[in-house]
Amino acid sequence: AGAAGATPTARAEYAASAAAAIAEAKSDLRATRESREADLAAICRIPSVSAGAANAADVRAAGQWFVQALHAAGLRNAALHETSLHPVVTASDASAGAGAPTLLLYGHFDVQPGDPFELWTSPPFSAEVRNGTMYARGVSDNKGQILAAVHAAGAMLRAAEALDERPPVNIKVFIEGAEEIGSPGVDEFVRAHAEELAADAVLSTDGTQPPDGGAFMLGLRGLCSLQVDAFGASLDLHSGVYGGVVANPLHAVAYALASLRDPATNEITVPGFYDGVPEPTAEEVADWAASAPDEEAILADIGLPPGHYGGERGRTWAERNWNRPTLEVVGMHGGFQGEGMKTVLPREAHAKVAMRMVPGQDSERVRRLVGDAILEAAGRFAGVDTRVSYPEGGADAYVMPKDCPLNRAAARTLRETYGSEPGWVRWGATVPVTSLFREVLGVYTTTVGFGLDEDKWHSPDEALELERFSMAAGAYLGIYHNFRAVHDEGAGGAAPRDEL
Amino acid sequence: AGAAGATPTARAEYAASAAAAIAEAKSDLRATRESREADLAAICRIPSVSAGAANAADVRAAGQWFVQALHAAGLRNAALHETSLHPVVTASDASAGAGAPTLLLYGHFDVQPGDPFELWTSPPFSAEVRNGTMYARGVSDNKGQILAAVHAAGAMLRAAEALDERPPVNIKVFIEGAEEIGSPGVDEFVRAHAEELAADAVLSTDGTQPPDGGAFMLGLRGLCSLQVDAFGASLDLHSGVYGGVVANPLHAVAYALASLRDPATNEITVPGFYDGVPEPTAEEVADWAASAPDEEAILADIGLPPGHYGGERGRTWAERNWNRPTLEVVGMHGGFQGEGMKTVLPREAHAKVAMRMVPGQDSERVRRLVGDAILEAAGRFAGVDTRVSYPEGGADAYVMPKDCPLNRAAARTLRETYGSEPGWVRWGATVPVTSLFREVLGVYTTTVGFGLDEDKWHSPDEALELERFSMAAGAYLGIYHNFRAVHDEGAGGAAPRDEL
Repeated sequence: AGAAGATPTARAEYAASAAAAIAEAKSDLRATRESREADLAAICRIPSVSAGAANAADVRAAGQWFVQALHAAGLRNAALHETSLHPVVTASDASAGAGAPTLLLYGHFDVQPGDPFELWTSPPFSAEVRNGTMYARGVSDNKGQILAAVHAAGAMLRAAEALDERPPVNIKVFIEGAEEIGSPGVDEFVRAHAEELAADAVLSTDGTQPPDGGAFMLGLRGLCSLQVDAFGASLDLHSGVYGGVVANPLHAVAYALASLRDPATNEITVPGFYDGVPEPTAEEVADWAASAPDEEAILADIGLPPGHYGGERGRTWAERNWNRPTLEVVGMHGGFQGEGMKTVLPREAHAKVAMRMVPGQDSERVRRLVGDAILEAAGRFAGVDTRVSYPEGGADAYVMPKDCPLNRAAARTLRETYGSEPGWVRWGATVPVTSLFREVLGVYTTTVGFGLDEDKWHSPDEALELERFSMAAGAYLGIYHNFRAVHDEGAGGAAPRDEL
Repeated sequence: AGAAGATPTARAEYAASAAAAIAEAKSDLRATRESREADLAAICRIPSVSAGAANAADVRAAGQWFVQALHAAGLRNAALHETSLHPVVTASDASAGAGAPTLLLYGHFDVQPGDPFELWTSPPFSAEVRNGTMYARGVSDNKGQILAAVHAAGAMLRAAEALDERPPVNIKVFIEGAEEIGSPGVDEFVRAHAEELAADAVLSTDGTQPPDGGAFMLGLRGLCSLQVDAFGASLDLHSGVYGGVVANPLHAVAYALASLRDPATNEITVPGFYDGVPEPTAEEVADWAASAPDEEAILADIGLPPGHYGGERGRTWAERNWNRPTLEVVGMHGGFQGEGMKTVLPREAHAKVAMRMVPGQDSERVRRLVGDAILEAAGRFAGVDTRVSYPEGGADAYVMPKDCPLNRAAARTLRETYGSEPGWVRWGATVPVTSLFREVLGVYTTTVGFGLDEDKWHSPDEALELERFSMAAGAYLGIYHNFRAVHDEGAGGAAPRDEL
């Protein structure tokens, strides 16, 4: 709908009513602030940990809670759907009509585990408020953010009703329950419900902003991985009785992993690994130089000294984190791991390797290249049976243009919110749903989350300042209206370049 | 005592009485067989697992049980002594007098853990007898064997009393409670009680024989070890958010370990590692060729195919296992080790390396060489802080001459027992107490155990055939008498060469 912009009549109708609708909705958000914060505490008290099976019922309860919240916001058809693992929640409101664009909101109601519990100041599922900040696992990632967007949608719908107008946009909602474990089951669900989820753009609430300005993630790295399993004898052996006689799988795996990276340059040495990796354009170089975070501050946050250099030689921080593929051994084990010494010659050794791909790379091809290189290197140890397997899951790299309509609408809103130009950045991590939506729904996902780096996602004392929770609701409301405005302007051509 | 042989009078006295004493003692052993088997079941029912603290009281109870058993055997001063960890037991009988040699019996009353319990046919501490074989953790390693030697000593003392003669040898006993965990505390105890333990030779019962013939371990490899700890950031990091930016300790440790061994030759590549390693003499080559076990059978036992080759290129099995030092990574871990994939960039990685040294090598020097090589290699990864530490413990290699008196006495006994010439072999493993006794008491340890490879030491269904338990007692009795005979012959020069 609406790709070519609205008719002049529709555009004029919306423009005339927009200011009043925004004012009405903002007043609604102010009036409901207290109950909305109670909502936030309620959902944060459900320990919807998606990892493992122990909290499966809580994940479902959190999904059911969102069904109620969406219903209360005035969205229709709010429903819980089964997937192969945790359920997902959908809802929609089409009362803006066929002349208005449709926005698909994305978020997740599952959370990371609460442990280590002893490092929390208040229990992770108590949602305690201290000095205007709520502390809870998931309060920022992502319950508070998707809830702010739902509250904004509710305020938008109620304002339209109060003014007897149509809302600016049609809203669809997709909230999943397995994001923290790589979204198993989501791919299948989205493919099976592509028509129901069809929209002009996806607005993901699962992101962060700098405290004093907005930023857009125009690219995400993809992810692929592999598992190495190496076997020797049928049992652990005495390293004296058998040492010098029997091949040791740990040596083979260590050797294979060592062969993948050049310590002098930190380049991955697998032939073909970098095939297709693009050099950044001049515009990207400039955007990244303007918006890349301060490397020294990042290092200090994680206990590393200034000048720490674990990256590829001759590359900027932005390139290394955003536009260069990496390969990391994410786990390895074999033999005795306890305190002290046990003189065992282990029967097996295991390793896990994760690769982050960039646009231009074929993940499937890359992981086969790496797997073959591992098998070749480990195979030099006669007597060790080394196998490589490729787990399900992963995602292609994602990249989007700066000037797609939702970016333009969100940039306008972030400019209004922060009074400054947003940055155009990338992210080194992977959000599988973005490339999935691009592939299945044919649309880009714009991520506008209002979490902060200091909100401690995945760590003890995860936090969300309540003032920011309110600010986010107002900003999402602004994005809905600006998306309609950009859509209506679409008929008249692209937005002025200085808005991008 | 007695290094120069007995006086002609004493020699004649012993020779005259020996046959009667042996007959009397053998009759005693036959008569007490049932009660001795009940003894074996009783000690095997005490779960004296030395690893961990859970069974410390049981280890002590097993020691106290041996104090009683030694007392019942007629040995004097049987006592439990504290060490820094588990207790040790000593006893002695000097009634053979100053003209007779003194033998120090060595064994241990601690055992390996019983798990995995589900793989046992009967519980590991039930001492069930099936078809003439007793099944229990420790029944062969080493309770049954040291008990057989104690029973033999008892029969020897009772026979002397019955015949109103002196026994052929003075007996001292040292039974420890921590052998299975590397004998912590034993070094200190032996050094502090060197005078009390002084003897002409040590007879260790902690060994095995081929089912149809005897063999002597003339050499044992030494042991030294080191621990590698590598650190990056102060916390585990997201491999996407930080990959390409932060150095990964797992890569550094894998690289360092990989640098230690050449996969084409399986040689250790640390410069200086092989300094001082001797090539075998022609006599050793011949002895080993005659007595080395069947490599294919060993491989089949541990689930490896014929032709498996994990050893140093161009060396025989006997050389690789007995006379070449080895270096094995005995453990490594870091990052995520569970099922599936977690995209973590780990904050730390760890590895343990054990080296088996041969005579001619200085263990302390070797482990420093290896540690320095690890630090040098890991140090090529800028940003990883790698440390090497050297645990307490370990032992030098041990080697003894073929023709020492106890070997001659035991060879005579084994020839009587099996009707064949014993083999002269080595062992790839380490028994720290042998080099300790050599250093502190100045004597060699001859290991004559009657356990079999199929007795499943350290594994489920550990076993000892009761017929073999009886045979062992008779054989130990024979060794006591033959040691006296060899001692008495000492005055007349070395035994004929064909006895060696």
